[in-house]
Amino acid sequence: MDYSEMKPCEVRELIRQGKITHQTSGMCNGFAQGNLLILPKAQAYDFLLFTQRNPKPCPILEVGDVGSRLVKRMADNADIATDIPKYRIWKYGELVDEVTDISSLWQDDFVYFLIGCSFSFESELLAADVPVRHIEEGKNVPMYMTNIETQPAGIFHGKTVVSMRPMKPEYVIKAISVTASMPRVHGAPIHIGDPAAIGIADIHKPDFGDSVTIHEGEIPVFWCCGVTPQSAVMSAKPPLAISHAPGHMFITDVKNTLLKD
Amino acid sequence: MDYSEMKPCEVRELIRQGKITHQTSGMCNGFAQGNLLILPKAQAYDFLLFTQRNPKPCPILEVGDVGSRLVKRMADNADIATDIPKYRIWKYGELVDEVTDISSLWQDDFVYFLIGCSFSFESELLAADVPVRHIEEGKNVPMYMTNIETQPAGIFHGKTVVSMRPMKPEYVIKAISVTASMPRVHGAPIHIGDPAAIGIADIHKPDFGDSVTIHEGEIPVFWCCGVTPQSAVMSAKPPLAISHAPGHMFITDVKNTLLKD
Repeated sequence: MDYSEMKPCEVRELIRQGKITHQTSGMCNGFAQGNLLILPKAQAYDFLLFTQRNPKPCPILEVGDVGSRLVKRMADNADIATDIPKYRIWKYGELVDEVTDISSLWQDDFVYFLIGCSFSFESELLAADVPVRHIEEGKNVPMYMTNIETQPAGIFHGKTVVSMRPMKPEYVIKAISVTASMPRVHGAPIHIGDPAAIGIADIHKPDFGDSVTIHEGEIPVFWCCGVTPQSAVMSAKPPLAISHAPGHMFITDVKNTLLKD
Repeated sequence: MDYSEMKPCEVRELIRQGKITHQTSGMCNGFAQGNLLILPKAQAYDFLLFTQRNPKPCPILEVGDVGSRLVKRMADNADIATDIPKYRIWKYGELVDEVTDISSLWQDDFVYFLIGCSFSFESELLAADVPVRHIEEGKNVPMYMTNIETQPAGIFHGKTVVSMRPMKPEYVIKAISVTASMPRVHGAPIHIGDPAAIGIADIHKPDFGDSVTIHEGEIPVFWCCGVTPQSAVMSAKPPLAISHAPGHMFITDVKNTLLKD
């Protein structure tokens, strides 16, 4: 089944019916996908402030009203409790379960946060003829814990997680220029070159995702990553949090090109 | 006394001592100034979400930790309760007092919000040889209530307030380009041309500030304005809020050019 040319509302309907429970990479070409974090209102202020202080790893696309499952701004007729293929349940910072629907878990005090995803800028990199290695190799992007502290806010703190794409110098220049114009999906890189400078001991052993080939003469380019909120949840240990499972994103009705603002 | 070439920390010290109680326009050339809103924690979540949903009128420069008067990110050694020349006290949406120091009013549950100010982009417009009429005429910028609804968040809602600068078409193009690169100080204009299209009945009768000359062939250019939060306070009527008095801003240690990101 090829989901790349389907409309976001059609794919969300299949997800809602439980017919899609796998990763959303490559679905609905050109449309932005989003990371999810859900917290009770009691922790929502601290997390909203955390995103304000850390806009590169946590660029907000939409925050729901308290208790509302409805997505208003990034999609029409979407339900955040059913329209993601796989969710993760976190208790006191520990991953305790993975489920495909959270309707029965929904609470009147829940607030959802939709956060920009690098899938959006990757499609713009490809459009600018910048090759993206993990896509060429059919892998998940390599992601690393760094020694870069986030700006703490209330209970939330922790290190920044980055994703890495290796490329030749001429592509580095183009990639910086393209992504700098997309602050709502992580923006410009946070580091280029030496992995050790940001606390990465072995570039071939990512903490999340897959290792990719780095050719002679290529520079590793590091972007802030939407896994950072999950890292902050692990550090803050709130009683309850719900996230998407990595790669199982919310598909919006908004085109990637519209996130250039 | 010429404050334009003084350092921000020097001027803040004079303000703290009560030696400056007037407007800060033109002080500390090149350094960003900020709008202020202070709310008790009980209303802070709604307002933080309001700024997230309305980044053009309410671009956040810094949010304080609960109860903290200390400015950490935008200045060194600054006290938000003493370092602004004039404050306004709002009760249930009504302006009840103006004072020059709020130390005695400070509460352990207060959260301050510093919000970007058009003073920053005006200095960049002048640097790009775009003439700014109200500066030429020695007046305050004209500001207007519009019919553009803000995106509501919790108790906060209301119309967007805009500032207006008239200019020739060739300058309009340059002004849009310059300000689009400064999203933390209101960014690109929200409207150009016909005032009636955004609910302004008479361009010569601003709701705040002064009327300025508009020459034949000039286009009025409208930017979102940092007075919008005060408009939202008037609509939301929280029990207590404190703002700066218009034009009496917080002077940061951050250069305007560094807000281009």
